[in-house]
Amino acid sequence: MSLEEIDNLFYLLENPTRRRILQLLSRERLYPLQLSREIDVSQQAVVKHLRILEEHGMVASRDEPSDRGPNRRVYRASRSVSLHIDVGPTTFREQAAPMAEDAELSTEQLRIRSAIAEARNMEPSARMDLLARVGEDLRHSLRDHEQKRQQLLALISELNREVGRCSRKADCSYDERRLLHHMLQNPSYTIEGAAAALGLREAEVRLLLAGLEERGLAR
Amino acid sequence: MSLEEIDNLFYLLENPTRRRILQLLSRERLYPLQLSREIDVSQQAVVKHLRILEEHGMVASRDEPSDRGPNRRVYRASRSVSLHIDVGPTTFREQAAPMAEDAELSTEQLRIRSAIAEARNMEPSARMDLLARVGEDLRHSLRDHEQKRQQLLALISELNREVGRCSRKADCSYDERRLLHHMLQNPSYTIEGAAAALGLREAEVRLLLAGLEERGLAR
Repeated sequence: MSLEEIDNLFYLLENPTRRRILQLLSRERLYPLQLSREIDVSQQAVVKHLRILEEHGMVASRDEPSDRGPNRRVYRASRSVSLHIDVGPTTFREQAAPMAEDAELSTEQLRIRSAIAEARNMEPSARMDLLARVGEDLRHSLRDHEQKRQQLLALISELNREVGRCSRKADCSYDERRLLHHMLQNPSYTIEGAAAALGLREAEVRLLLAGLEERGLAR
Repeated sequence: MSLEEIDNLFYLLENPTRRRILQLLSRERLYPLQLSREIDVSQQAVVKHLRILEEHGMVASRDEPSDRGPNRRVYRASRSVSLHIDVGPTTFREQAAPMAEDAELSTEQLRIRSAIAEARNMEPSARMDLLARVGEDLRHSLRDHEQKRQQLLALISELNREVGRCSRKADCSYDERRLLHHMLQNPSYTIEGAAAALGLREAEVRLLLAGLEERGLAR
């Protein structure tokens, strides 16, 4: 997703009330009064947040008949998206991606999916037991996964430190260092692309590149 | 990290200018004028953002002697943290964690770390080649990793849908469904904990639990 979309997701998700609303709507359809009661925010404020979320496709609504009185508008979460940011002394990564509900599964994961489906024929208590167990396994895998991701990020951070050392040792200018970073992040960089990304003219990029080549930092 | 800390990180990172500042400071120390030029925002605004980031420990500064004129204040990114949120029709996860710079590495990862360190004795061009190659590998691993995480999230989302089906089939009340979700997310839940999380009295939770047990949804 583009930088603009990342900005937009941050704007939508920064608000704690909007995040609580999305959390509740990820479990079931609710109407504004229920949301207002559960998160202890005025119904007026809830409606305002729902409007913003709906404008951005995060929730969808429809009118449903009510037992007492006129139809009421019921909301559900409607958009799957992940927003991740990692910041640190030598790390910066931000990304947003639609969640792939149809992600290709491994054999082990297909087995889990079958188990979830088969549970439908079980007695309620056995079914809930199985779902609880599978849930715990999945949350455990996710934690493992987070840890491995941390390891990868630690290595990337170390690599970035090393590139920094390298460019300092070679007495690179500020723009040379910027170009070097751009080249390392974009192995198939072009002069035009680098110029656009760094806000330089193409002639300047060529000059910087020549300087880096001279010192063996690029070729 | 607590919900309050997640709120706080969203507040700090939602602002696009602050994110650009952190991105630039993750590469090298810079002073406000450099930041202002690079992101095309007034120096006054940059200084304001730096003050907020520093108050929250995201950046640190120190005075450095300048070639021309008085000392100048130089900033660097100082805090490692990851913020992740996944939202969707049956998914809601938000988490913030300090990045573990000293994460325990696998054998393969230790090999990569050694390669990075050994590169220090190489000629500049060979060194940059190696760092570029390692960087590409790591970014590739990270992408693989994201994909596997998506698969896990897809399964968790499927599980949540199934739990929803289960509770609808058993004609659970709204509070019963809330309790059921709480129990599944917290396998070692307590009556006290559930009451606090759901904003109910303990007596109410006991009553709901009895109802769920009667229908075989809890035991």
